[in-house]
Amino acid sequence: MDNFKFHVYTEIFFGKGEIKNLPATLGKYGKNVLFAYGGGSIKKNGIYEQVMELLSETFNVVEFANIEPNPTLDSVKRGVALCRNHSIDVILAVGGGSVIDCTKAVAAARYYEGDPWDLVLDSRKITKALPIVTVLTMAGTGSEMNRGSVITNKEKMLKLGMGAPVTMPQATVIDPTYLFTLPPIQTAAGAADTFSHVLESYFKKGEDAFIQDKMSEAVMLTVIKYAPIAIKEPENYAARANLAWASSLALNGLTGNGKSGAWSIHAIEHELSAYYDLTHGVGLAILIPAWLKHILNEQSVDRIAALGVNVFKISDQQDKFEIAKKTIGAMEQFFASLGIPMRLTDVGIDEEKFELMAEKAVKYGALKHAYVPMTKEDVIQIYQLCK
Amino acid sequence: MDNFKFHVYTEIFFGKGEIKNLPATLGKYGKNVLFAYGGGSIKKNGIYEQVMELLSETFNVVEFANIEPNPTLDSVKRGVALCRNHSIDVILAVGGGSVIDCTKAVAAARYYEGDPWDLVLDSRKITKALPIVTVLTMAGTGSEMNRGSVITNKEKMLKLGMGAPVTMPQATVIDPTYLFTLPPIQTAAGAADTFSHVLESYFKKGEDAFIQDKMSEAVMLTVIKYAPIAIKEPENYAARANLAWASSLALNGLTGNGKSGAWSIHAIEHELSAYYDLTHGVGLAILIPAWLKHILNEQSVDRIAALGVNVFKISDQQDKFEIAKKTIGAMEQFFASLGIPMRLTDVGIDEEKFELMAEKAVKYGALKHAYVPMTKEDVIQIYQLCK
Repeated sequence: MDNFKFHVYTEIFFGKGEIKNLPATLGKYGKNVLFAYGGGSIKKNGIYEQVMELLSETFNVVEFANIEPNPTLDSVKRGVALCRNHSIDVILAVGGGSVIDCTKAVAAARYYEGDPWDLVLDSRKITKALPIVTVLTMAGTGSEMNRGSVITNKEKMLKLGMGAPVTMPQATVIDPTYLFTLPPIQTAAGAADTFSHVLESYFKKGEDAFIQDKMSEAVMLTVIKYAPIAIKEPENYAARANLAWASSLALNGLTGNGKSGAWSIHAIEHELSAYYDLTHGVGLAILIPAWLKHILNEQSVDRIAALGVNVFKISDQQDKFEIAKKTIGAMEQFFASLGIPMRLTDVGIDEEKFELMAEKAVKYGALKHAYVPMTKEDVIQIYQLCK
Repeated sequence: MDNFKFHVYTEIFFGKGEIKNLPATLGKYGKNVLFAYGGGSIKKNGIYEQVMELLSETFNVVEFANIEPNPTLDSVKRGVALCRNHSIDVILAVGGGSVIDCTKAVAAARYYEGDPWDLVLDSRKITKALPIVTVLTMAGTGSEMNRGSVITNKEKMLKLGMGAPVTMPQATVIDPTYLFTLPPIQTAAGAADTFSHVLESYFKKGEDAFIQDKMSEAVMLTVIKYAPIAIKEPENYAARANLAWASSLALNGLTGNGKSGAWSIHAIEHELSAYYDLTHGVGLAILIPAWLKHILNEQSVDRIAALGVNVFKISDQQDKFEIAKKTIGAMEQFFASLGIPMRLTDVGIDEEKFELMAEKAVKYGALKHAYVPMTKEDVIQIYQLCK
């Protein structure tokens, strides 16, 4: 097991009605609150009203609305201006990963005089950040319990990650009932995102990080059990609760700390959703089986087979390559069963940019340090497998 | 899943050599350090020297030595006096659960004018505590990453738990090489303690806390794999690392939050180690199979069988009572294989105090709220099964 640091200081308020903790939690930091949210679904499902009722008497609430999926540098700049103009003390992010990611960049850029993009390119420049409190309305990214953030620069056509110890949310409200109104494809995409996060950990280097791998399997088993239920019965509390908590635990260091090497699939996906505005989780679900097919060889077969036996309950009484192939098939079938379109052509993506995206994925994703190192040609082949 | 709060703010420095972070970590809180430790094993294995070398130039180090296993109220009072007399800013606990538990009580009692025992009887009286930093030298209790503490009052013959949000360590160094010199029985007792913590969670109420149960299984699988290796090869880094991290994750809320009801086995054990100064983990290992035998019935059988199938890999192709009985047998055999004496008579305990201990266990353990509610008679029967 590699040396690691683990410091997840986010305070979680989990369960129905836990939003009641918001005033006391925000109040620790001051009176001026930047209320960040996305396209307005929170106005339809009542969460916006609930927040305003809780805060409007005691706090000065400044709204930061219309944060887009795959949040852009332009939104970050807009948020920074609001923070400065209104002497914001604390940011309240109500949404999924996009809203929370955007506020992390805003929180850090508030204290940085240069272009916020500098902080995306080099997170070591982040020294201070406004405190962030989040209310989760979509499960999957895990952003509510970690420091990471992904920002899109439309001008440069880049989608890159950033993060520092100070950009982790101070507190997060996870109320599973807030996920009841998610459309099936969002539920499916979120589940695929959660699954992918632990899969990336599972395929990091480090053979003896056993407990981390068992934690990863715990998350995958949870997604496999509850994603189909949440899609069929959107108001099934147990399903929403398990998926939400799985999402937070999938990317807070529990499964990845102690292992080494770069992630593989996310870098390849980020290019897709940077160029095509594809839902991140959908892109991941399409890529995962293709990536596994591409890397299957004498070195990786045991790991893929372990995944199949422990998670997909495939019998270990057969040839390991047979198990591995069945594992990949089971995974593809699982994502398809959630209603995710599983071919790039299904989501309107053709070969045109394969070469360009592959080049960028290798460059920005450090794919030469991945579990199975990747060249541009490897990535093109993976995109080809997804056609 | 029940509502829960999760706030584990302890910063973990995990791995060989990570003690190097001590000066910077302690330095955040001040110059006057109370250096707490136990019977002196850290003077034999070099950790004492290492700590002194790192701290002696920059800090005023006050030693608080000879904290006993099952730390007593008298030790707590001694520590409080040292804190007050030397204007201590931060406590450094170097040891296992006993040393860390003792410092939690000291840290809180430092700011309490009355008898520290008041805080054990009612943790709501804890409002403030000195910051605690720990260096782990024995894995098992999980005290390095939670708020809880168990203190023994010799005069009243009581061993009770306490804890508050402010008594959680701020930071913890877990260097697996510090566990290399642990004698086999301590390794075994620590493994049994870790196992018991997730077992208590596994048998709390809450059928749909699925991810919590899968995390519990992850910890149990880790203990089953690595405890025998660590006993056979005390310097096996992977084994020590996995056991240590399992120990911290077993009792920080990951496996128990979201489920309800009182613990069962710990209350019954605490009476044993209060009256007989038995090693806590040994007492737990003796009691667990007996408790399971006692509670096995139509209501509990599915849960016990799930444990057997998922953790002990017992075939599910048989009658569920058969699976449950094999599970209990496998568990007993596992603990025995670690070299733990498995009968109370083996550790010099006879029937004399069974009735008295049972009465106290029911009273202080809130056993009527356990997964299977217990009366005094139930507890006596469990002790009888352990003879």
